[in-house]
Amino acid sequence: MSLYRNGNGNSDAGEITVFLGSFVHAESGNNPFVLVNNGVIGVQHGKIIFVDVEDNLDVLKEKFSFSGDNIQVMGQGEFIMPGLVDTHIHAPQYPNAGLGLDLPLLEWLEKYTFPMESRFEDVSFARACYKKVVQRTVNCGTTTASYFATIHKAAAEILADIVELSGQRAFIGKVNMDCYSPDNYCETTADSLKSTEEFILNINKRKNSRVQPIITPRFALTCSEELMTGLGNLAKKYDVNIQTHLCESIPEVQRALELFPNCKNYTEIYEKVGLLTNKSIMAHCVHMTDEEIGLLKKYSTGVAHCPASNMCLLSGLCPIRKIHDAGVSVGLGTDVSGGYTASILEQMRLAIIMSKCLKMEDRSCPREALNYKEVFYFATLGGANALSIGDKIGNFKVGKYFDALHIDLASADSPVHLFPGETLLDMVEKFIMLGDDRNIVQVFVDGKNVKKSVQPLLLT
Amino acid sequence: MSLYRNGNGNSDAGEITVFLGSFVHAESGNNPFVLVNNGVIGVQHGKIIFVDVEDNLDVLKEKFSFSGDNIQVMGQGEFIMPGLVDTHIHAPQYPNAGLGLDLPLLEWLEKYTFPMESRFEDVSFARACYKKVVQRTVNCGTTTASYFATIHKAAAEILADIVELSGQRAFIGKVNMDCYSPDNYCETTADSLKSTEEFILNINKRKNSRVQPIITPRFALTCSEELMTGLGNLAKKYDVNIQTHLCESIPEVQRALELFPNCKNYTEIYEKVGLLTNKSIMAHCVHMTDEEIGLLKKYSTGVAHCPASNMCLLSGLCPIRKIHDAGVSVGLGTDVSGGYTASILEQMRLAIIMSKCLKMEDRSCPREALNYKEVFYFATLGGANALSIGDKIGNFKVGKYFDALHIDLASADSPVHLFPGETLLDMVEKFIMLGDDRNIVQVFVDGKNVKKSVQPLLLT
Repeated sequence: MSLYRNGNGNSDAGEITVFLGSFVHAESGNNPFVLVNNGVIGVQHGKIIFVDVEDNLDVLKEKFSFSGDNIQVMGQGEFIMPGLVDTHIHAPQYPNAGLGLDLPLLEWLEKYTFPMESRFEDVSFARACYKKVVQRTVNCGTTTASYFATIHKAAAEILADIVELSGQRAFIGKVNMDCYSPDNYCETTADSLKSTEEFILNINKRKNSRVQPIITPRFALTCSEELMTGLGNLAKKYDVNIQTHLCESIPEVQRALELFPNCKNYTEIYEKVGLLTNKSIMAHCVHMTDEEIGLLKKYSTGVAHCPASNMCLLSGLCPIRKIHDAGVSVGLGTDVSGGYTASILEQMRLAIIMSKCLKMEDRSCPREALNYKEVFYFATLGGANALSIGDKIGNFKVGKYFDALHIDLASADSPVHLFPGETLLDMVEKFIMLGDDRNIVQVFVDGKNVKKSVQPLLLT
Repeated sequence: MSLYRNGNGNSDAGEITVFLGSFVHAESGNNPFVLVNNGVIGVQHGKIIFVDVEDNLDVLKEKFSFSGDNIQVMGQGEFIMPGLVDTHIHAPQYPNAGLGLDLPLLEWLEKYTFPMESRFEDVSFARACYKKVVQRTVNCGTTTASYFATIHKAAAEILADIVELSGQRAFIGKVNMDCYSPDNYCETTADSLKSTEEFILNINKRKNSRVQPIITPRFALTCSEELMTGLGNLAKKYDVNIQTHLCESIPEVQRALELFPNCKNYTEIYEKVGLLTNKSIMAHCVHMTDEEIGLLKKYSTGVAHCPASNMCLLSGLCPIRKIHDAGVSVGLGTDVSGGYTASILEQMRLAIIMSKCLKMEDRSCPREALNYKEVFYFATLGGANALSIGDKIGNFKVGKYFDALHIDLASADSPVHLFPGETLLDMVEKFIMLGDDRNIVQVFVDGKNVKKSVQPLLLT
């Protein structure tokens, strides 16, 4: 393998880049973890043009007209995997990440979240914060993020600018709230709908497939029926994605049913206003009845599972395996700053831990706790499916965008030690349980490496 | 503050080193988290000679005869805290860290642990592994570790050599097992006692206060009553510490009571053979009756709380607050490799998360879940107390050794972003929830910086 030049991994224009060596990806929910020891993946114009084995390299060279110069070889301790998908993150809450997790959901919203979000009326504050959160998520290997911004259209467009420049793939949501909200952080129904439509048009004008608008009512507790109905209509009119919160905590579920007494359950509230679609994703879904899970399945609506947040805010242990087993698409979300970390890798560990805690609550349950292979699927193809872009990204299939991570367990200052005799399986498991951004040495979106070294983080 | 030279922090011989700026430490279990914004700590001969405030600096200079050249100033985003104490770590299991956590305790011991530990008969294998684990724990800020080695005396002495060279403070335990163990990983009772006594004498011969032997029966399931009684006598004869496992999982508790039918409970087994002393520490204690907690209190025996391990191996959620509230000293343990990470900082987060999971199981419980201040205490002074060396290390008191960490949240490639207006409290909370070894820029043991940059971790 030392015959090949170690390419820079950026596939310019029509040039082919070929990744040679170990890779791991999910084939499907039923086959969530496929290891390939001597694989080869070809990328052109940002998309995967072939996936094969090293033995066929000479044939591939001839067929696709590339040479050794186009090949990037994975060395010992290195492998390629699909990029991580963060299906639920509040970009403006990033300054609070790691703070204030001694409060339950509704109190925490009052004390930490709303005061911080209201500051995003100030576009220069917004720009400074949004730069940092995008830098952080890219650095942690998040190739696709579904961001909640704030109610401020100008700030949300700045977030779109920053994402576009960064090279990350993202959905950007201007948040909607028209009732039961702080006086200084609330919109009228008409303004909320008007600015959302303008926001969609402005984002779509960019004609950048990486940056998409997403309809983002905060949740049924701060949105009137009229607002939600209007947003459902906008989603239909422009065929855009939808994200919101659902059944995160018991007090929230109770409050939703008080506000919408004609609905049998919380999920039905969103159904009635047209917010359950096959391009919708619901964050949390901790406290769902079987009927509600059935509604998500019926509409092909996805779920963003946020284990750090659910445990830290005492929301509850989410029975995510049950939701997944019911045929609902599940991805992972950091839920910054209800979740303290912007790392999806850490959510993988915490999803395992939460599942083990659920198992300990009911050891008679015949299903085992989630293992690292299943959370790997959630973090990649599962997340892509939950965001309804599983046909474009999430694993290594010809025709999909090459959104991928180059992992190096022997990188400088690596948090993982390797030992003789370890297999690719061992290495991937160690990366999932012990790795961090230092092992994520390249982050590819549309075939382009978008990871830059993090600047020293001085107080400014 | 820019008047002072930025000292190298190594207090040679009689030279005084003074740390000026922010620090945080635990005063006691009742006052677990004390912040000092403009503090000053003086260190000489490895020990703390004064703790004061910056306003008194001129008076201190005169009294202790030091100049600006002796002062190391903490800049913005920096603070000093006590070193982390890992009260329970299996050094030979480090190669398995991150692997095989889909099995429950007793199966995992058979498949992963015993086969790995039996390899430590090979001293060159032992040397290679032990170098890596000590390098890793020092790098993660563990200034004191209580290590389980294996049954092999030669390998355990190599671990002591490596610890001694590294500058870390540690207890080293040659493990004892004389029954119900794999054929290739078991001792006779006589050999076990003989080699343990030799081990104690060899370690004590070094006359290095940093490196102490600790009596280490694996647990009641693999030690005969005769062996445990003999070990209790050795502990008394040489006045050494004791460590073992207690009430980790339900099947283990049941098996212990089958093996010792004359004992009312598992803890009483250790009491009867003289293994409960004020220099003993019991790992786990997940499934304890009130009577058993009372026994620990009676003997002033400490507890090593290992949240990662307890959750990963499905052992149970340990009610550690209840044990702490009963007046028992509690520290944190990584329990590598039942716990996947060698980082006590991560145990702090996982102790919070486990406590929150317990709270969610019984929301009517009047006590709140553990917060970051309490786990900070467990990780520092609590751990020192649990290892019965709280009079020597654990916080910043005159006469104690200066075992401390220099934290820099704005270090190169920091995983933590800071924002304007954040207080010292915010910074410490962010470090606990988001920091890692990159923020631990100096690790002091006996006043000497022992942190070296980690070498590239190539496969060898």
